[in-house]
Amino acid sequence: MDNFIFQNPVKVIFGRNQVASISAEIPKNSKVMLTCGGGSIRKNGVYDQVINALDSKPIEFWGIEPNPVFETLMKAVEIARAEKIDFLLAVGGGSVADGTKLISATIPFDGDPWEIVTRKVKPTKAVPFGCVLTLPATGSEMNCGSVITRRETKEKLSFQNPLVFPRFSVLDPTFTYSLPTKQVTNGIIDAFVHVTEQYLTFPAQAQIQDRFSEGILCALIEEGPKTLNNPTDYDSRANLMWAATMALNGLIGCGVPQDWATHMIGHELTAFFGLDHAQTLAVILPSLLWVQRDSKRHKLIQYARRVWNINDGSEAEMIEKAIAKTRTFFESLGLPTRLTALGATEDISDLIVSRFQTRNMLPMGDSKNLSADKIREILMQAQ
Amino acid sequence: MDNFIFQNPVKVIFGRNQVASISAEIPKNSKVMLTCGGGSIRKNGVYDQVINALDSKPIEFWGIEPNPVFETLMKAVEIARAEKIDFLLAVGGGSVADGTKLISATIPFDGDPWEIVTRKVKPTKAVPFGCVLTLPATGSEMNCGSVITRRETKEKLSFQNPLVFPRFSVLDPTFTYSLPTKQVTNGIIDAFVHVTEQYLTFPAQAQIQDRFSEGILCALIEEGPKTLNNPTDYDSRANLMWAATMALNGLIGCGVPQDWATHMIGHELTAFFGLDHAQTLAVILPSLLWVQRDSKRHKLIQYARRVWNINDGSEAEMIEKAIAKTRTFFESLGLPTRLTALGATEDISDLIVSRFQTRNMLPMGDSKNLSADKIREILMQAQ
Repeated sequence: MDNFIFQNPVKVIFGRNQVASISAEIPKNSKVMLTCGGGSIRKNGVYDQVINALDSKPIEFWGIEPNPVFETLMKAVEIARAEKIDFLLAVGGGSVADGTKLISATIPFDGDPWEIVTRKVKPTKAVPFGCVLTLPATGSEMNCGSVITRRETKEKLSFQNPLVFPRFSVLDPTFTYSLPTKQVTNGIIDAFVHVTEQYLTFPAQAQIQDRFSEGILCALIEEGPKTLNNPTDYDSRANLMWAATMALNGLIGCGVPQDWATHMIGHELTAFFGLDHAQTLAVILPSLLWVQRDSKRHKLIQYARRVWNINDGSEAEMIEKAIAKTRTFFESLGLPTRLTALGATEDISDLIVSRFQTRNMLPMGDSKNLSADKIREILMQAQ
Repeated sequence: MDNFIFQNPVKVIFGRNQVASISAEIPKNSKVMLTCGGGSIRKNGVYDQVINALDSKPIEFWGIEPNPVFETLMKAVEIARAEKIDFLLAVGGGSVADGTKLISATIPFDGDPWEIVTRKVKPTKAVPFGCVLTLPATGSEMNCGSVITRRETKEKLSFQNPLVFPRFSVLDPTFTYSLPTKQVTNGIIDAFVHVTEQYLTFPAQAQIQDRFSEGILCALIEEGPKTLNNPTDYDSRANLMWAATMALNGLIGCGVPQDWATHMIGHELTAFFGLDHAQTLAVILPSLLWVQRDSKRHKLIQYARRVWNINDGSEAEMIEKAIAKTRTFFESLGLPTRLTALGATEDISDLIVSRFQTRNMLPMGDSKNLSADKIREILMQAQ
């Protein structure tokens, strides 16, 4: 196990009717701005519950997109500065939370805010914020990371800063009852791949982290289909929500190698083709595991055994079966695992490789063996 | 899954040579008091490393006992007040951490400090403190609970307060290399039973919590014997240390029923017979599971399957085997699971029952079905 530092101060307020308690979590006399997405929270009653729970009427900013767009967020910053906002309340999914993190760090920031996203500068102040989560997927509700898209340059980049941990996050599973199926399956895949990026690496003799990762994967595999079959099954919704949070709150990544290559390649596919984040992950992960099956051999066998209960055959066969099971699971949720099925047939591998080269990201992966050639191979396999 | 609130702000600093970083974690110009146990840290070099890492020489308080004693801790409070201490640094195992929590809450407290322990009053201030852990067992390094013994009245009671979360805890697995075997096995049992108290209850459809609990148990079962066979196996020590911390930092107990009856009965056995905490747990748990096998049936079967890989036989047989495996595991670590083997043959069941009755604790257990008669039965089974 590698050395690590772990600290996660987020107060998770989990369960039915918990949103009623948020006013106690927001400093008295704060000037609050809600930050929201496209409006689904008006239809499912979440917006009304939030407004009722607050001491006074907040300023509202609507329109944060899936894959939150820098240009949009800067409009929110302008309003927040003009209104002297001192507390933000993100009501929505991971994109709203991610976007709110950049708003929070930019309000008191003097320089070019894109440099926060490109990590050229580290902000030293941020406006505090809370989160009311409506879509389990990204884990943003309990971490300090944020992924931002710049429309102008078709870039999708991430930054992390402890200042942008939410002060609290309300996770009410009933808020997810009305989600469209596609968003539920996207969330399951996103959480699933967050785990594999921290687990399917080279071995690090980190038993707790491995067992926890396997536990989250098993929960997603069991609870995902249950939720799709019965959208108002409270326990299943609750398990998915908590699984997605635990998948990316820092815990399972403590002291272990990580490999975020699936996300890195996926971000480029989203930026170019406008695919959903989870669509790109479902396409890239099985191909990447196949191309990287030698350096990830030990953990793939452990994954085969402990997650998919595959105990027969040679090691090579076990690995092949485990990757096939992963692909079948994604497809069973309704997510294609081939780019052609998504209509993304243009070959952009050179473009992706050259971007990674420009950003000095190659070779990538836990074993630093994911070269330009291998990325081309993964994208070819993913066709 | 039940509603829950989870927040754990402790900064865990894990790994080799991490103690060197503590001065950065302590506010500048603090007047620091070390709180320590019996002196083993002088022999294994931990004391020297801590002193070297600090900016200036601290005040030192030695002699916090295993099962920390109220009367001793009050002496530390006197010194801390006289010396105007504003930061405490607990260097030791869970008893030192627990004791330091009471010192921390008592220094600025006006009333009778025993009422903090009996939970009659809730302190509103506490002196901040950090922890350098030398013995993985209690989880005290990452929680806000504390168990205190009063010599005068032979009482052992616990309190919890978010004010007494450590600000940071340094977990260096090499600090545990020189532990006597008995302390290592005690720690494994303590962590094991912390998990079962939050897991072997009635089912709550909490997948993540169940999987994490099972993961910690599996890790303890696999890594415990490895450590005993090879005391300087770093990874095994690291896994045990992180397992014990995760067993009682609040996470696996989120939104699930809990049953602390094994601990409650065990505390009385320690108070009366002077047995080690873990000795009492090893004796009580198997008997309690047997007596409570009906109300814990579903989870005992899950435990049999997922932790002990028992898949054959009737449900009753699976439960019997799982309890027998638990007993065998404890015995294999060198811990007796019968009171007679510990020389504790006096029948004190009436005394224990009457204490629980005086404190209005009966019936206890997750299903509130652990009556006076059942406690007598557990103690008889434990003979």
